[in-house]
Amino acid sequence: MKAATYHGPGDIRIEERAGPGIEEPTDAIVRITHTAICGSDLWPYRGADEYDEGTPIGHEPMGIVEEVGAAVRHVQPGDRVFAPFGTSCGQCEFCRKGLHTSCVNGGFWDGLGVGGAQAEKLRVPLANGTLVRVPDRYADDEETLEALLPLTDVMGTGHHAAVSADVSAGDTAVVVGDGAVGLCGVLASKRLGAERIIAMGHHEDRLALAEEFGATETVSSRGEDAIEAVTELTHGGANHVLECVGAQSALETATQVVRPGGNIGYVGVPHVESPAFVEQLFSKNASFTGGPAPVRAYAEELVADVVQGTLDPSPIFTKTVDLDDVPEGYRAMDEREAVKVMVKLDA
Amino acid sequence: MKAATYHGPGDIRIEERAGPGIEEPTDAIVRITHTAICGSDLWPYRGADEYDEGTPIGHEPMGIVEEVGAAVRHVQPGDRVFAPFGTSCGQCEFCRKGLHTSCVNGGFWDGLGVGGAQAEKLRVPLANGTLVRVPDRYADDEETLEALLPLTDVMGTGHHAAVSADVSAGDTAVVVGDGAVGLCGVLASKRLGAERIIAMGHHEDRLALAEEFGATETVSSRGEDAIEAVTELTHGGANHVLECVGAQSALETATQVVRPGGNIGYVGVPHVESPAFVEQLFSKNASFTGGPAPVRAYAEELVADVVQGTLDPSPIFTKTVDLDDVPEGYRAMDEREAVKVMVKLDA
Repeated sequence: MKAATYHGPGDIRIEERAGPGIEEPTDAIVRITHTAICGSDLWPYRGADEYDEGTPIGHEPMGIVEEVGAAVRHVQPGDRVFAPFGTSCGQCEFCRKGLHTSCVNGGFWDGLGVGGAQAEKLRVPLANGTLVRVPDRYADDEETLEALLPLTDVMGTGHHAAVSADVSAGDTAVVVGDGAVGLCGVLASKRLGAERIIAMGHHEDRLALAEEFGATETVSSRGEDAIEAVTELTHGGANHVLECVGAQSALETATQVVRPGGNIGYVGVPHVESPAFVEQLFSKNASFTGGPAPVRAYAEELVADVVQGTLDPSPIFTKTVDLDDVPEGYRAMDEREAVKVMVKLDA
Repeated sequence: MKAATYHGPGDIRIEERAGPGIEEPTDAIVRITHTAICGSDLWPYRGADEYDEGTPIGHEPMGIVEEVGAAVRHVQPGDRVFAPFGTSCGQCEFCRKGLHTSCVNGGFWDGLGVGGAQAEKLRVPLANGTLVRVPDRYADDEETLEALLPLTDVMGTGHHAAVSADVSAGDTAVVVGDGAVGLCGVLASKRLGAERIIAMGHHEDRLALAEEFGATETVSSRGEDAIEAVTELTHGGANHVLECVGAQSALETATQVVRPGGNIGYVGVPHVESPAFVEQLFSKNASFTGGPAPVRAYAEELVADVVQGTLDPSPIFTKTVDLDDVPEGYRAMDEREAVKVMVKLDA
């Protein structure tokens, strides 16, 4: 089969690999029909994270079940399914708490050594807990599938930012970052009933998409100007701030725009250089909560909204490629030509 | 009047100063009868914070109202009162939210320039909002007064750590630090109904006091051994961790012993050198909440418990001095001879 593999910064190749087979009775083999390139795939692409030469890449799989192990009851061959960026058993303490990213039996695709999702096929361990079935009625509806694809990662992650920031009906939320996760954070805040959503970013086209998604105001200035603008718009800071980037500057911005006693939900892997923002968090008694989003926990409620037509994150896909053009997809995201790239294998 | 003043690391002096007078209609003048030396007074004493030469010091005042401004209605001359380590108006958005340390009109004694509490008299701005009246029946009961004195700071701060760590009935709580705040954190966790309280510290005498206060287990080892011990006792980490120190090592310990999805309440002013613990917080989806304790918000409920005899933090005072011996009190705390020093002005 063909699979996207990592060969160093800026070097993603499509290579021939042996197709996966069932290894454990809890495995399923999924033929990938849709997948995507994630902002976090850009960390190794840009040399900020280190991967071994030849590592398969991608963690947002959607496809058709081809084969299942003897212990798999939740899905059957022929089912349309998707999976989060990590596997989870569904039955340990943390899965029961809705914290599937701390599953004691699961792991993240990038660390499991089972392959990547930017490939023709993927072995899915813990298939009962990990795979989400697309309801039969929508299993071949392309529009629905494209709206569901972001639930593998960024839509669940934006939702986790909003939940961690304690957004609920009537609130004012500030979203830091206009990447795919930030845009999904806007959608999630809207869905949770926020009255005002202020989107902060540096790209006019993305902020226009934020407005389509429900942002009532946008702030495109940088540095102190941006802080001042948001502070003025919120009369002294927001009680609910979604930090959707993970970079030092975004953590600092979130800390500066949060209102005393407010909540920061953060979901970008923190790349922290200086801890000074912790002292400011302290002085404001601001709550700082977040982590890898347990997107498996959110799948059912988000699927329900997508299939009833009240949630559609698919406009974040501003470019679509086939598997052979995955390297071009990385380039387009790296150069910010695309917000997020969808990979369609039967395109 | 006599007042304790700061003259550089290790140099606290008792000097003659002009007594305070009413300057604003919202002021009260309090004749100090009891006060204390705080662990945070040791930061400048040890040279870790910078104060101007001659700065009056101390922020845990209790005494008798001598005089009030025209706008003061809440207290009268002759009332026994105490005040938190900061002033607050009681009527702004943040005071109404119970976040008096973010009061838009108030401030901290150390920054107000009105004097320190380790003195014969103190001018109290915003007296209506700031001062807490001791109920008349207990106004001259020495035992009650000594149990109330910690409510000026450390008892409210320990309570804030427990509230921020979301401790409630039936929970297991881990308290990092066996100083006065940590010990009060144990008392607060017990009072909130924690079933198990694991106290972490390095001093056997203080951990013995923690057990008197309700700790069900203590861990006195250091470094990795301590982390392992707590992890084993909690079968993988605690959902509720009170970080009661503020030092880098304590923040790291708290992050290592918290259970995935758990809550860290932190109340020591963070003196952070390395941000690596933020990545671990993230990986665990642990909530990190705290700040300067709004002890004014907690005063009424804690006073009620003290006067009915169900809360008594006074054993944290392991040494008592008069005003002239305040420098000796600093020395004793600095050298860890005393957990916390009470200053009695009519002793």
